[in-house]
Amino acid sequence: MAEKVHIFDTTLRDGEQVPGCQLTTPEKIEVAKELELLGVDIIEAGFPISSPGDFNSVIEISKAVSEPVICGLARAVDKDIDAAADALRFAKRSRIHTGIGASDMHIKYKFNSTREEILERAVWAVKYAKSKKVDEVEFYAEDAGRADLEFLARLVEAVIAAGANVVNIPDTTGYCLPQHYGEKIKYLFDHVPNIDKAIISAHCHNDLGLATANSITGIMNGVRQIECTINGVGERAGNTSLEEVVMVMKTHKDLGFETNINSKGLYGISRLVSDLMRMPVQANKAIVGKNAFAHSSGIHQDGFLKHAETYEIINPEDVGVPASSIVLTARSGRHALRYRLELLGYLFDREELNSMYEKFIALADRKKLVTDDDLQELVTTEYPVKAEAAKKH
Amino acid sequence: MAEKVHIFDTTLRDGEQVPGCQLTTPEKIEVAKELELLGVDIIEAGFPISSPGDFNSVIEISKAVSEPVICGLARAVDKDIDAAADALRFAKRSRIHTGIGASDMHIKYKFNSTREEILERAVWAVKYAKSKKVDEVEFYAEDAGRADLEFLARLVEAVIAAGANVVNIPDTTGYCLPQHYGEKIKYLFDHVPNIDKAIISAHCHNDLGLATANSITGIMNGVRQIECTINGVGERAGNTSLEEVVMVMKTHKDLGFETNINSKGLYGISRLVSDLMRMPVQANKAIVGKNAFAHSSGIHQDGFLKHAETYEIINPEDVGVPASSIVLTARSGRHALRYRLELLGYLFDREELNSMYEKFIALADRKKLVTDDDLQELVTTEYPVKAEAAKKH
Repeated sequence: MAEKVHIFDTTLRDGEQVPGCQLTTPEKIEVAKELELLGVDIIEAGFPISSPGDFNSVIEISKAVSEPVICGLARAVDKDIDAAADALRFAKRSRIHTGIGASDMHIKYKFNSTREEILERAVWAVKYAKSKKVDEVEFYAEDAGRADLEFLARLVEAVIAAGANVVNIPDTTGYCLPQHYGEKIKYLFDHVPNIDKAIISAHCHNDLGLATANSITGIMNGVRQIECTINGVGERAGNTSLEEVVMVMKTHKDLGFETNINSKGLYGISRLVSDLMRMPVQANKAIVGKNAFAHSSGIHQDGFLKHAETYEIINPEDVGVPASSIVLTARSGRHALRYRLELLGYLFDREELNSMYEKFIALADRKKLVTDDDLQELVTTEYPVKAEAAKKH
Repeated sequence: MAEKVHIFDTTLRDGEQVPGCQLTTPEKIEVAKELELLGVDIIEAGFPISSPGDFNSVIEISKAVSEPVICGLARAVDKDIDAAADALRFAKRSRIHTGIGASDMHIKYKFNSTREEILERAVWAVKYAKSKKVDEVEFYAEDAGRADLEFLARLVEAVIAAGANVVNIPDTTGYCLPQHYGEKIKYLFDHVPNIDKAIISAHCHNDLGLATANSITGIMNGVRQIECTINGVGERAGNTSLEEVVMVMKTHKDLGFETNINSKGLYGISRLVSDLMRMPVQANKAIVGKNAFAHSSGIHQDGFLKHAETYEIINPEDVGVPASSIVLTARSGRHALRYRLELLGYLFDREELNSMYEKFIALADRKKLVTDDDLQELVTTEYPVKAEAAKKH
């Protein structure tokens, strides 16, 4: 039996705080409903103390969504925790996510404090959050990625003893190597006597391009919750990409983990979040980039056409991409062209189709492979009126 | 002493074969010269047999560049190897990169062959390439990521015995987990008796978002060459990002590896390749995305302003980004605004600046942090003539 890994989506909190990505409350509700359909276990809906808008969004998301746990962020400060508890009052299942810096760098420069003071304040924050009317309390040990291991173990033990249901070990600066992050988690499992009383969570950042690998190494060492965002949006180089960790677990069944995510929804929600946040996804983004399933080179195309698995480890349909992007070549017939144009939303009568087919063959001779984008451009050039009309839908 | 890892750039071969990314020969020469300045050890300049244009580009790049080894791709076929050797004749140091499928999936479905036949053909190809007037021969064992380990070890031993100077172990489909890729490399070092006679190379794809982690796990197990591209461009979800692996090694000096790359050139060449290939880099791309060094949330900004290292593991100047993007808030003065506008290329007289400052403060109140993009938009709205004039430069 595969073990379950909880998916904690923070697109609406860690993702949304990026400049230019701000969403309105109705937009956040739209994303939250899609996250619910996708099957995420926890939605971090906002940071209630940070603004009246965020506070209100957490309330409205709590009302709009019923399956996932709704989570609100709060520093280890009473007014933050009060605001989070207040904003979460309509959630079917609620979680306060509170915490404080755990690395000496953060303790010294950000809090001008000492390890002992931080420990006390952490325990106080968890107990204070537990005293509120919420179902669960999660504690984050900020910059755990660079924290002293012995101190981190003491901190984790103390907050679990204080009642934390989940303990988040963030690599806040995206500094860790997978091996080191895995060893850190293993150390905690070896040195925190009450660690089985809580779920340990990975919250990794992608500054060195390692967030997915770090999260996966985390679960191989005991983590059972991954904090992530759609398209990996977030602070700086972003958070762990939800779609990547989910598909790693699905592709590598031998690891023995499963999630509640319906992977067929990944492509759709990626488009939605990209559009609403005005954050384009690069063509070569894993899983959801527009080229992720495009086979282009002569060598690859040849192998792919003989047997898809030679170059494709994921079936595009499994992540909601309608079909492999390799569809049209100079050997494609009128029927294939019409089908593809219809998927793009264009209807042509027989005469128009004959004319399009001629142009298409000329293009295919030049380009070898004709993608949807090429077809789109062809329609725009040849039938600008149709292209304009399609844009309005 | 740190051990050297060779950087093999394949932006102009594996990157350039993506539909829409095709470059003209002069554009390729421009990129090649920048790669030389960046300090890459090997430039894979093209696949000479694939088209007259590619053939010609390899010739022209060989003439234009003198420091890096120039490499041409060739399947294990005589006409490919002939074309590569011919195209490389002007290179100061030349390398033919030949190879064949190594996994049973590729052997059976792509080559309709057997392991023994593949082994023979591999040895023949290396010997044939060595018989040409080139300085080095590299062998690729395509789809090594899914190949039978025992067979792969026999193949590697045989091609090294045949004279291969470098052996490439590609994870062609981007399937491997870091742990598994590392174990595969370790197995080869444990089971191939002549492995010290060649450099072992990692060529990873990013289908699951793991290419950087796989390459780094590779070097931790004996790999001494990484094949990568600027911005991670390439087939499907792309190749390993050059900028990511280089900065992992530079940030984690404790690993004990170094490269010849001048990291201050990373941002500039990222922009160049993105522009020429018309492949936008997403804002949250590690190292070179426009948000990679932008600190936005109140919590992060506060820590960052107190001490940059609390949230920044890489100094933006080390990768050629002029300065951290965190510059303007509602507390920024006129001087800071003018300085930032000047960096963007705008000069304002005192009166205009006063007017801009008012608009800026209103914006900063709404947005908390004002980025260069926001300023650009403000100028476009308030002074469209200036913005239009700036575009023309």
